[in-house]
Amino acid sequence: MTLRPVQIKHLKNLFQIGNDDQITHAIEKIHPSDLSLLFSELNELQTKRLVDCLLMVQKAGNTLKEIPEFMLPDILELISNHKLSLIIGRLDTDDAVYLLNKVPEGRYQEIFSPLDSRTRLNLEKLLLYPQDSAGSVMNPVYYSIPVESTVEEAIASLQKFPDRESVFYVYVVDGKQLVGVVPLRVLVLSDAKDFIRDVMTTGVMMVEASSDQEKAAQLVSQYNLLAIPVVNENKELLGVITVDDVIDIFEEEATEDLYNIAGLSGEDRAFTPVTTKIRKRFPWILLNLGTAFMAAMVVGLFEQTISQFALLAAYMPVVAGIGGNSGTQSMVVITRSIALGEIEFSKAYIAVFKEVMNGLFLGIIAGMVAAGVAFFVNMNAFLGVILFMSMMVNMILAGFMGSCVPLILKWLKLDPAIGAGIFVTATTDITGFFVFLGFAELFIDKL
Amino acid sequence: MTLRPVQIKHLKNLFQIGNDDQITHAIEKIHPSDLSLLFSELNELQTKRLVDCLLMVQKAGNTLKEIPEFMLPDILELISNHKLSLIIGRLDTDDAVYLLNKVPEGRYQEIFSPLDSRTRLNLEKLLLYPQDSAGSVMNPVYYSIPVESTVEEAIASLQKFPDRESVFYVYVVDGKQLVGVVPLRVLVLSDAKDFIRDVMTTGVMMVEASSDQEKAAQLVSQYNLLAIPVVNENKELLGVITVDDVIDIFEEEATEDLYNIAGLSGEDRAFTPVTTKIRKRFPWILLNLGTAFMAAMVVGLFEQTISQFALLAAYMPVVAGIGGNSGTQSMVVITRSIALGEIEFSKAYIAVFKEVMNGLFLGIIAGMVAAGVAFFVNMNAFLGVILFMSMMVNMILAGFMGSCVPLILKWLKLDPAIGAGIFVTATTDITGFFVFLGFAELFIDKL
Repeated sequence: MTLRPVQIKHLKNLFQIGNDDQITHAIEKIHPSDLSLLFSELNELQTKRLVDCLLMVQKAGNTLKEIPEFMLPDILELISNHKLSLIIGRLDTDDAVYLLNKVPEGRYQEIFSPLDSRTRLNLEKLLLYPQDSAGSVMNPVYYSIPVESTVEEAIASLQKFPDRESVFYVYVVDGKQLVGVVPLRVLVLSDAKDFIRDVMTTGVMMVEASSDQEKAAQLVSQYNLLAIPVVNENKELLGVITVDDVIDIFEEEATEDLYNIAGLSGEDRAFTPVTTKIRKRFPWILLNLGTAFMAAMVVGLFEQTISQFALLAAYMPVVAGIGGNSGTQSMVVITRSIALGEIEFSKAYIAVFKEVMNGLFLGIIAGMVAAGVAFFVNMNAFLGVILFMSMMVNMILAGFMGSCVPLILKWLKLDPAIGAGIFVTATTDITGFFVFLGFAELFIDKL
Repeated sequence: MTLRPVQIKHLKNLFQIGNDDQITHAIEKIHPSDLSLLFSELNELQTKRLVDCLLMVQKAGNTLKEIPEFMLPDILELISNHKLSLIIGRLDTDDAVYLLNKVPEGRYQEIFSPLDSRTRLNLEKLLLYPQDSAGSVMNPVYYSIPVESTVEEAIASLQKFPDRESVFYVYVVDGKQLVGVVPLRVLVLSDAKDFIRDVMTTGVMMVEASSDQEKAAQLVSQYNLLAIPVVNENKELLGVITVDDVIDIFEEEATEDLYNIAGLSGEDRAFTPVTTKIRKRFPWILLNLGTAFMAAMVVGLFEQTISQFALLAAYMPVVAGIGGNSGTQSMVVITRSIALGEIEFSKAYIAVFKEVMNGLFLGIIAGMVAAGVAFFVNMNAFLGVILFMSMMVNMILAGFMGSCVPLILKWLKLDPAIGAGIFVTATTDITGFFVFLGFAELFIDKL
C-alpha cells in the first residue's frame, strides 16, 4: 500500500530523533517503490543515513532504481563509490545497467572494477547492445532447463534458482537453442514424472537481441505474455524481458511521442532544474524562431497591401492558426496509429487521402464561419470570400502535410513524431499567410 | 509469430478456392491476434465465412476482441444475433462486456437474452460499474481458495478451474474476505502437505471496484505485479485485473493524453471514416475559430497603428507563436508528470515557479535574437526593444499558464490534458498580440 501522510510524518520524525535500529526496523516492511518517495522529504545527512539503513536490509538497489530519474544524480552524489559498487552488485543485471548509466563518467571505473567477475561479465553482455535494443533491457540471468528433463527435475532446479521472483515461464533449451516453453501453471498441474518434452509448448514467441525494445513490448502486449525470451540469430537464449519491463517501455515510449511533438526531451519533468530545462528547450525555441521569421518574411512581402488594408493583419493569424491546429490533429492521429502498429506503408495513401478529405470539408465549414464573421462584423463580403478560399486551401495542405510528414519520417527510419510538429505548423503558417495575403493583394481593389 | 505476407496471400487464396475444412485447418494454429489482421483483407462474404470458421475452432470471440476498434462496427454488422450471442457467451466476462459495448442498441436485447443465466449474472456484475472504473474492466471469474486449505487441495482445485490461463496468483479468502495471496511459483515449490495459511503472503495489494482503472494500472506497474485483485469496501474479493489488461489501460491512457492535447477523440485513427473524423473534430475547430477571432479582435484594436507601420503585422505572429510553443512545452511536461504520479499539489508551486523561470530566461534569449534580427534586417532598434519586451512578458505568461492550467484541471478532478492546449495557446496568442501591439502603439513615434 502506498505510504499514508502519517507514515511519512512518522518516518521523518524517526530520522530526527530515532536511532538506526529503529529506522531499519521501520523500513524493513515497506516496499522499495514506496521507500523511494521518502528521498524527496529528507536532507543530505538524512539521505545518507537512509541509504545506509537500506543497505542493511538489502533494499538499497531496488529502492534507488524506483527513484524518479531526475532526482537520481543528486542522490548518487551522496553515496560513496564503495557503497554504490555494493548496491549495484546485488541488483538484477538490467537494473544494474540502469544505475550504472546514471553514474558520472569519472566515477564509473571505481564502481565497476570492484564488482565480482561474474557480475561484470553479465553486465558487459548487456552493455554491448545498442540503446533501446531488446538486448539492452533484457535480464541475462534467466531460468532454463534441458529438453530431456522431467517435471520433477525442473522443479528441483527451480528450487535452486536464486532469482525465482522473476520466473514466469520455464524456457526449454536443446543445447543452447530455445525449443519450447512451459508456463508455471502447467508445471504445477503436471505429473512429477512427466517429460518436459511432452508438456512444453513449441513455437515460442521470441525477439532477437538487436531488435528494438519496442518490438519486444509490442509482442508481449499483442500476445498477452508475461515475458519474452531474447535470442541471438541462432535462436540461442540470451536473456528474458519480463512484463514489468514492458510496462516501463510503454510508459517511456508514450512520454517520448508526446515529448517529441512538443520538442521536449525525456529528462524534462516537473521538478527538473530550471537550467536543464532551459538548456534542453533552447534549440527547439531557436528552431521555432527560425520558422517564425520565415513566416514573418512572407508577411513582409505584403507590407504594402497590409498598410492599405490593416484589417488583413487581424485575420491573417486566424487562417494560419486553424490550419496549424488541423495539421497537428492529422499528425497526432497518424503518429499514434504508427506507434500502435495500425498502419502499413502499402495502405498509407488511404490514410493520407482521408486526412486531406477531412481538411477539405473542415476547411469549407471553418471558411464559411469565418466568411460569415467578416461579412456581418466587418460588412466586407469580399474579405469573406478571400478568407473562405485561403482557409480551404490551407486546411487541405494541413491534412496532407500532417499525414505525410510522420509517414516520411517513419519511412526514413526516424521517429515519426520528432520534429513533425514544428514542420507541420511552419508549413501551415507560411502557406496560410501567403495564400491569404496573396489573394488579398490580387483583389485589393475590391476590399 | 506475426503473419508473413506470404501467409496472408496463402490464406486469401484459400478463401477464393478452398473449402471450409481447408480454411478451418489453416486458421486453427494461428494466434487470434494475427487472425484479427485478416479481416482488413477480406470482402463481406469472405468475412462471414471467416467468422463461421472461427466459431468452429472456438476462436471467434478472442479474434474479434483483437480487431482494431474502428473496424468492429462494420464486422459486427455482418454477424447474426444468434452467432454473436454464441461468441459473446464463450468469452471471458471482461472481453464479453467490451464486445457488448460495441453492439448497436437495437440488437442488444436479442444478443443478451439468449445467454445462459450464469453468464448474464457475471456480465451484469460488471455492467453496473461506472466507465473506466476498476470494476468495469476486471474479470469477475477469479480463482480463490479458503484459507484453511492445504497446497495439495489448492492444486487440485486449480486443476478443475476452467479459465486456468488467466491465473497468475492464488488468492486466499476467509469467508469472502481476501486475506492473502500465493504466487504460482510458491505453489510449485511448496510441499503438498503445507497449509496455505503458512505459505501465503498477507498485506495483499488491492483496489476497490469503484476506483479509477488508472489507479489499478499504476499499482500493478509500481509494484511489478502480474495481477491485482478487485474488492468491495469490505475487502471481499470481486474480481481480478491482469497485467495484459493493464498494458491495454496504459496504451489507452497514453493515447488519451496525446489526443486530449490536440483536441481529438480516441475513435479517430488512421483509417476511421472521413465523416466520423469531421464530426469528431468539428467542435474543436469551432472552439479554435472562437479563440482565433478573439485574438483577431485584439489585433483589430490596433488597426490604426498597423496601417501606420505594417511591419508590425509581420512580427506579431512571431511573438504569439513562440509564446504558444513554450506554453505548450510547459503544459506537456506538467501533464505527463501528473499522469505518472510524479507531482503533488503540496509541491505544485515549485513546478509552476520552475516553468515561469524557464519562460523568463528563454524569453530573454528569444527576445534578444528577435531584437537582433529587427535591428540588423530592418535597421529598426526600437522595434527590437519592443519585440524583446513583449516576448519576455509573453513567455513568462506562457510558463505560468502552461503549468497552472493542467494543475487546475486536475484539481477540479478533470482530465489535466483536455482543452489545456487550446486554453494555453489562446492566452499566449491574445496576450502576445496585445502586449506587442500595445507597446508599438505607445511608442509609434519612435518606430
